[in-house]
Amino acid sequence: MNGAHAVARTLLASGVEVCFANPGTSELHFVTALADEPALRGVPCLFEGVATGAADGYGRMTGRPAATLLHLGPGLGNGLANLHNARRAATPVVNLIGDHATFHKQYDAPLESDIDALAATVSGWVRRCDDAATAGGVVAEAVAAATGAPGQVATVILPADVAWSDGGEPAPPVLPRPSATVPEQTVAAVAAALRTREPAAILLGGAATRETALRAAGRIAAATGARLLCETFPARLERGAGLPAVERLGYLAEGAMAQLDGVRHLVLAGARAPVSFFAHPGLPGLLTPEGCQVHVLATPGDDGADALGHLAHLVAADTTVPVPHAERPLPPTGALTAQSAAAAIGALLPEGAIVVDEANTSGLWLPGATAGAPRHDWLTLTGGAIGQGLPLAVGAAIACPDRPVLCLEADGSAMYTISALWTHAREGLDITTVVFANRSYAVLGMELQRLGAPADGRARRDLLDLSRPCLDFVALAEGMGVPASRATTAEELTIQLRKAFAEPGPHLIEALVPALF
Amino acid sequence: MNGAHAVARTLLASGVEVCFANPGTSELHFVTALADEPALRGVPCLFEGVATGAADGYGRMTGRPAATLLHLGPGLGNGLANLHNARRAATPVVNLIGDHATFHKQYDAPLESDIDALAATVSGWVRRCDDAATAGGVVAEAVAAATGAPGQVATVILPADVAWSDGGEPAPPVLPRPSATVPEQTVAAVAAALRTREPAAILLGGAATRETALRAAGRIAAATGARLLCETFPARLERGAGLPAVERLGYLAEGAMAQLDGVRHLVLAGARAPVSFFAHPGLPGLLTPEGCQVHVLATPGDDGADALGHLAHLVAADTTVPVPHAERPLPPTGALTAQSAAAAIGALLPEGAIVVDEANTSGLWLPGATAGAPRHDWLTLTGGAIGQGLPLAVGAAIACPDRPVLCLEADGSAMYTISALWTHAREGLDITTVVFANRSYAVLGMELQRLGAPADGRARRDLLDLSRPCLDFVALAEGMGVPASRATTAEELTIQLRKAFAEPGPHLIEALVPALF
Repeated sequence: MNGAHAVARTLLASGVEVCFANPGTSELHFVTALADEPALRGVPCLFEGVATGAADGYGRMTGRPAATLLHLGPGLGNGLANLHNARRAATPVVNLIGDHATFHKQYDAPLESDIDALAATVSGWVRRCDDAATAGGVVAEAVAAATGAPGQVATVILPADVAWSDGGEPAPPVLPRPSATVPEQTVAAVAAALRTREPAAILLGGAATRETALRAAGRIAAATGARLLCETFPARLERGAGLPAVERLGYLAEGAMAQLDGVRHLVLAGARAPVSFFAHPGLPGLLTPEGCQVHVLATPGDDGADALGHLAHLVAADTTVPVPHAERPLPPTGALTAQSAAAAIGALLPEGAIVVDEANTSGLWLPGATAGAPRHDWLTLTGGAIGQGLPLAVGAAIACPDRPVLCLEADGSAMYTISALWTHAREGLDITTVVFANRSYAVLGMELQRLGAPADGRARRDLLDLSRPCLDFVALAEGMGVPASRATTAEELTIQLRKAFAEPGPHLIEALVPALF
Repeated sequence: MNGAHAVARTLLASGVEVCFANPGTSELHFVTALADEPALRGVPCLFEGVATGAADGYGRMTGRPAATLLHLGPGLGNGLANLHNARRAATPVVNLIGDHATFHKQYDAPLESDIDALAATVSGWVRRCDDAATAGGVVAEAVAAATGAPGQVATVILPADVAWSDGGEPAPPVLPRPSATVPEQTVAAVAAALRTREPAAILLGGAATRETALRAAGRIAAATGARLLCETFPARLERGAGLPAVERLGYLAEGAMAQLDGVRHLVLAGARAPVSFFAHPGLPGLLTPEGCQVHVLATPGDDGADALGHLAHLVAADTTVPVPHAERPLPPTGALTAQSAAAAIGALLPEGAIVVDEANTSGLWLPGATAGAPRHDWLTLTGGAIGQGLPLAVGAAIACPDRPVLCLEADGSAMYTISALWTHAREGLDITTVVFANRSYAVLGMELQRLGAPADGRARRDLLDLSRPCLDFVALAEGMGVPASRATTAEELTIQLRKAFAEPGPHLIEALVPALF
């Protein structure tokens, strides 16, 4: 068999079942191999950023990597932003990047560029396949590298002649690095700090935002009075009915500093010490308050759930946590705003939903409004590279075909990878997309205000405004085969959400809301 | 003044008048500076690939760089593919990439990544601004680096605190490197080779595809019998009424080899020795025939027009070239196909049009059909990174507001940067876009055929097909404010083209054509 077939069979043997693909000529042998291996599902994407974002969503929901299929350096370039987000989410992803034939690179043909340098900026692991015989082995190692704790992007560069040459052999799976067990004395030291009853907070991140870890953290908080926080942009936060309430650290430094004010012990469980998203003149970059001791209970590569379980055993052995109860909002009426839209979503979110949140400023009220919703997962913009939501939803929906996906999109962000809607339609994915159409880059409007710029100044009018003309997301969605509607009141949004949740397949709702800034 | 204002004023002083912008928080001080300098036109783009492609189009048409404004590593990542094309086109472009404040980088905040490594893959020149006082000087050097012969991408990384700090000073322009004059003996040696009357071809590239060079090359060809060819994907080929006909080298190795078959002297004027676009099993990468002597008359950094003028003086002093005449096709009737669409375009192309050609397989008949059209420029996909056309048209239209732009797009390629249509509408650009909707990645279908795969196989059905659902480009265009129509017959296309050319502002025509492969 040729190298391409060996790679495809190795992926399957290593547990990779999906390939989000945007191939070109140099990938056609692998495309043919995909067609010969029906167990390896090829999902067509009209842009590489859709493929990489989908792989991120898939990996977050399954803990296993999907493959991407990308066309040389420019294809990888188009996929970089969402790979950046995947890197920040510690998502397992395996990129397959086709390259020119090994003997052709010397000619500096038009598509030649430094793929290795590009790949290194987003990958924890990069390797080139040298020949068909060893390509399978490289791919097996890539899957293990991607999957090893805490998870990372692994990139395989597959030259065209390696793909087409005979002598390929599928390789057996390679065991990934397991998460590390946190030493007893580390857990004991944190327990001692919490027993002082000095003001403390536990900052959850990485895999410690999942059910088992959350339940342990909830008991610790109840027994010691420590506050429960999680990182600003968790990769996958389990929430809703029966789970302890966790407050996300604020996006703006001022907000996060207020949340951490007075904390004497900050316990990190899978999270890093908090830093501000951007620097601002006169504000600190490190957000840990002065005089606060930082305790690393578990790094992102550690078994944070296990460490929290041990800690709970030490400090909260007899604690039973009352089942928290948050009210669900009633379906709202009247004007459609970011706040009433959040209430509609809180009122209607279905059991087991996967929420992909790229609502940005329009999402301000979502955490509160959905705290009483049935169990759900919340996926966020981990790396700040916008254009993530619609692709992430593709991957989440393919990972969990029996769960509804709710994709919450800011209008500006949606336009970066809008062609993902076609994949929503092509694959018949059960995704309800709500586009918050406030017709501006409102987050930049907010930042301009912080800089003291006038709200109606030329900077804002020329480069932050998304009207003149307004984007018609109903037309855009229908142009890609996704049924769509526009909501201009809270009642309309409620009716349209109910319908979208009730029907299988993709839907898009353009929710006209005023910009907050 | 702060660093951002110093940068803006330096750009203006160096002749940069346009900034294609997709800013984020770290660029807001520069956004404010732009608003304070109305002579520096900020053009909003909804995706960085639109901004970089627009800068490429602007630079190709003016010979002067536009600036881009991009947001950290992920923003640059989104713009890389079209910067790759600009690099291959040797287009002058100045990227301004905002970065975290210098003192903030240590914290590895979510948007932190290796901007320098990314920039190096597409830029001939990369520099970071260290402080406000020297930022102007860095930018003046960047403009000179971009503009120096033959032209290149220059990248300036502007940390947020450099932008916001006081002490900035605008810098005076720096003189760019001029093109080099080709030595007399080089020209004489080529003249001697051509005088042998052995079969010869002149391969034009870079700046030698412009009028002065073309006229000289035409005289040389007429006097010596040398064939006139140009590189497969010229950055800007001047064509039409009165200019010598130049044959573009074929995209497929088989075709280019047939064109060069028997050539004993290949004279390179601004072009590199031809290589095949992709390697194929059993085909050579270097396309120069065996026994053919390659003569470098002018490298891309040389003054090719001057060298061709000298060469014409030596070998064609008394030659007057008969004005070539090619017939314009009549407006076609009947079925709409790639061939009849080309005839409609050939029949109607307006005087002075700028044609942006990303028609891919559907463009097969365009060169022939437009050979008799009035004078026009033809801009092609220099680097093979698709998603270039709609953005390139933005830049060409802003560079030449008095000339009509015709953007010829393949449907698959159009979807990579489809949000460029919003900028067409926002800026009221006189761009007529024709989308050749063949509903497949036909170029890959052609390559699959070459590999011997069945035309209706699973590989093709699953990953190359763009139907299920069909993309509705009329809805997509209207959703972004561009008036649009669909042509299903040759007559309809003719009527719609006439109307689009007659009216100012943007239009889009979806031309339903069968796939050729």
